[in-house]
Amino acid sequence: MKNYINLDHISANPLLREVKDVMIEAVENDYHNPSSQHRAGEHAAERIEGARQKVAELIHAASPKEIVFTSGGTESVNHAIKGVAAANREKGSHIVTTNIEHNSVLRSLKRLKSAGFKITSLPVDETGRVNPEDVENAITDETILVSVMHSNNETGTIQPIEEIGWITREKNVLFHTDAVDSVGVVPIDVQLLNVDLMSFAANSFHGPPGVGGLYIRRGSRIFPFLEGGVQENNKRAGTENLIGISGMGKAAELAARDLNDRYAYLIELKQYLLENLPNYIDEYLINTNLEHSLPQLVSISIRYIEGESVMLMLDEEGIAVSTKSACATGSLRASHVLLSLGLSHADAQGTLVIALGIDNTKEDIKQFLIALKQVVETLRNMSPLYKKAGQTG
Amino acid sequence: MKNYINLDHISANPLLREVKDVMIEAVENDYHNPSSQHRAGEHAAERIEGARQKVAELIHAASPKEIVFTSGGTESVNHAIKGVAAANREKGSHIVTTNIEHNSVLRSLKRLKSAGFKITSLPVDETGRVNPEDVENAITDETILVSVMHSNNETGTIQPIEEIGWITREKNVLFHTDAVDSVGVVPIDVQLLNVDLMSFAANSFHGPPGVGGLYIRRGSRIFPFLEGGVQENNKRAGTENLIGISGMGKAAELAARDLNDRYAYLIELKQYLLENLPNYIDEYLINTNLEHSLPQLVSISIRYIEGESVMLMLDEEGIAVSTKSACATGSLRASHVLLSLGLSHADAQGTLVIALGIDNTKEDIKQFLIALKQVVETLRNMSPLYKKAGQTG
Repeated sequence: MKNYINLDHISANPLLREVKDVMIEAVENDYHNPSSQHRAGEHAAERIEGARQKVAELIHAASPKEIVFTSGGTESVNHAIKGVAAANREKGSHIVTTNIEHNSVLRSLKRLKSAGFKITSLPVDETGRVNPEDVENAITDETILVSVMHSNNETGTIQPIEEIGWITREKNVLFHTDAVDSVGVVPIDVQLLNVDLMSFAANSFHGPPGVGGLYIRRGSRIFPFLEGGVQENNKRAGTENLIGISGMGKAAELAARDLNDRYAYLIELKQYLLENLPNYIDEYLINTNLEHSLPQLVSISIRYIEGESVMLMLDEEGIAVSTKSACATGSLRASHVLLSLGLSHADAQGTLVIALGIDNTKEDIKQFLIALKQVVETLRNMSPLYKKAGQTG
Repeated sequence: MKNYINLDHISANPLLREVKDVMIEAVENDYHNPSSQHRAGEHAAERIEGARQKVAELIHAASPKEIVFTSGGTESVNHAIKGVAAANREKGSHIVTTNIEHNSVLRSLKRLKSAGFKITSLPVDETGRVNPEDVENAITDETILVSVMHSNNETGTIQPIEEIGWITREKNVLFHTDAVDSVGVVPIDVQLLNVDLMSFAANSFHGPPGVGGLYIRRGSRIFPFLEGGVQENNKRAGTENLIGISGMGKAAELAARDLNDRYAYLIELKQYLLENLPNYIDEYLINTNLEHSLPQLVSISIRYIEGESVMLMLDEEGIAVSTKSACATGSLRASHVLLSLGLSHADAQGTLVIALGIDNTKEDIKQFLIALKQVVETLRNMSPLYKKAGQTG
């Protein structure tokens, strides 16, 4: 296999060398069960509490006790939404969300709806952002939770979380944000954001896959989701993924240290991509709100062709991109996120998600653009839609 | 720290060298997201499917598709119980279980009870086993699930699962067994056991902590627990813990190969322990049903003293044992399992769980017995209970 260019960092980020070293040390050393009371258990517990401290610092939590380690963003989201619903049923059964949430939010809410909860799902404007006033107007006396994602996994567009946080705080409604693609990538301060619950995942900041966290502000009324033992301050049962948590702690420490440098580098790469893109292809839409977005992500819809064909042909050339969230592959429907932006089904089908990483270079982008130009020309030459557009245009 | 003798393998098992190697390879190689459609994703998917095949072979599942990877035994149990309850609510709301289940079962059922489900919890006899006839008599037209653990995590006693399986099959009721401490330790064949759902965890057979599986027999009516993406054949959402799953697959392969040898070795060690124990201490009870039990586990209650003191003093001598399940530490109450056997509170407090491992030797046991004798003498000399018993005895 020739040198592979990864422009799909939203699906998976490579682990940093220091993260790998910490995980290998954990694998080699057979740490004991952190809940055991003998000394072997204590060493393991210290390790987990060290990681918790680093994660708390990364998001500016008031206390490490507000961090619960989970098996990833999906568990965190399920925990937040279903845990709040179960704990506050007597207070009310209304939840406010948006039309562009991740499937873990959508499906958790769908389950609650079938159990009798009422869900208000708000639209976004054509740039992909929800209007905080809409959130304010949607809240009723019955509302127990507002769940709005921090950044969208398909477009990278960032929502006005801070403004929504002021509203939910004033209205005394719990506020959850799915920040899986934001934490460790853009500065996140749970105090400034006024969120009560926040879901995040280690791999977004070069930690291992299948490990994540849920921030639970002290005093938030929520039930555990995984029930059993008293691990995680009685908030999440189950023997801990000690090896993964060790890696997450190191990744959090490095993200806190290097976030600004990484951000600047990714923005530079993204600018380079956006400035050069028009020299290689035409007739495309940019789905990302460039003013409010993750530094590394751009979603483009290339007209008259199918994104999946582009992705597969680029794969042949040794370049990885995605057409939509890795979590949504297997579903053949057009992305609900893109349709919410007002895209036609045809344009939505022509979408590529380019997710840069700190391991990419401008040379990678140049090679991608050269390959993309070729692929788009080939596909458009076969496209009846393109010929028809040419005849009428 | 001097050489540490681990007799607490029920809390944590060391990883095998081959398991470590596979995990380190996974850490080093940055496998991609298995759901991605480009080739980097395919490599990751192949890795997971290879592990799934090995786990399926270990428990004799008809198809690897019946295996769902989870974050451990606790998630598997929550998934099985809450997933069946949610999916079969219209059929009925009655569940049958026993008094000696693990906290993950107890707390999941408690949650369901508060949501209107009816729970019948069956007693065990003085040897710690449930009577299959009691299960049969407890099943009504409303019963949607029977959940009985395969082996108990505090006593090691094995339940008559096969006999119960015949009953649930005949009555057409779903049957879940929590086999977290059995799978990979004793021979398990889901076809012979007639179970529909089975929870298990990798660390029990020397795989990593925080990774597990749920066997779901094809056709069983159950909802997903973690909802979101379409991973795990749409049965469990969330980006996979690829590093952990890689280790679990290797551990399953080795367990299938070596199970008989390990079993024979552990039984030999356990016999050695039981034969020599009376030469070192007196006035103790054996809580384990030795005829039906895990090969490596013995629970003893040493009268007139506290197990926790014994544990801490042995820890000073470099010997790890536990007093009860690591998951239950933090709770000060006497074990519900031991009380269900008919033990007094005082005797239950004097309990030690000795969990041998394939890394132990007869020499370890000898050193343990010598230290135990000393510790018991010291504690009894300080015990008012012991003096009182001596005066009246």
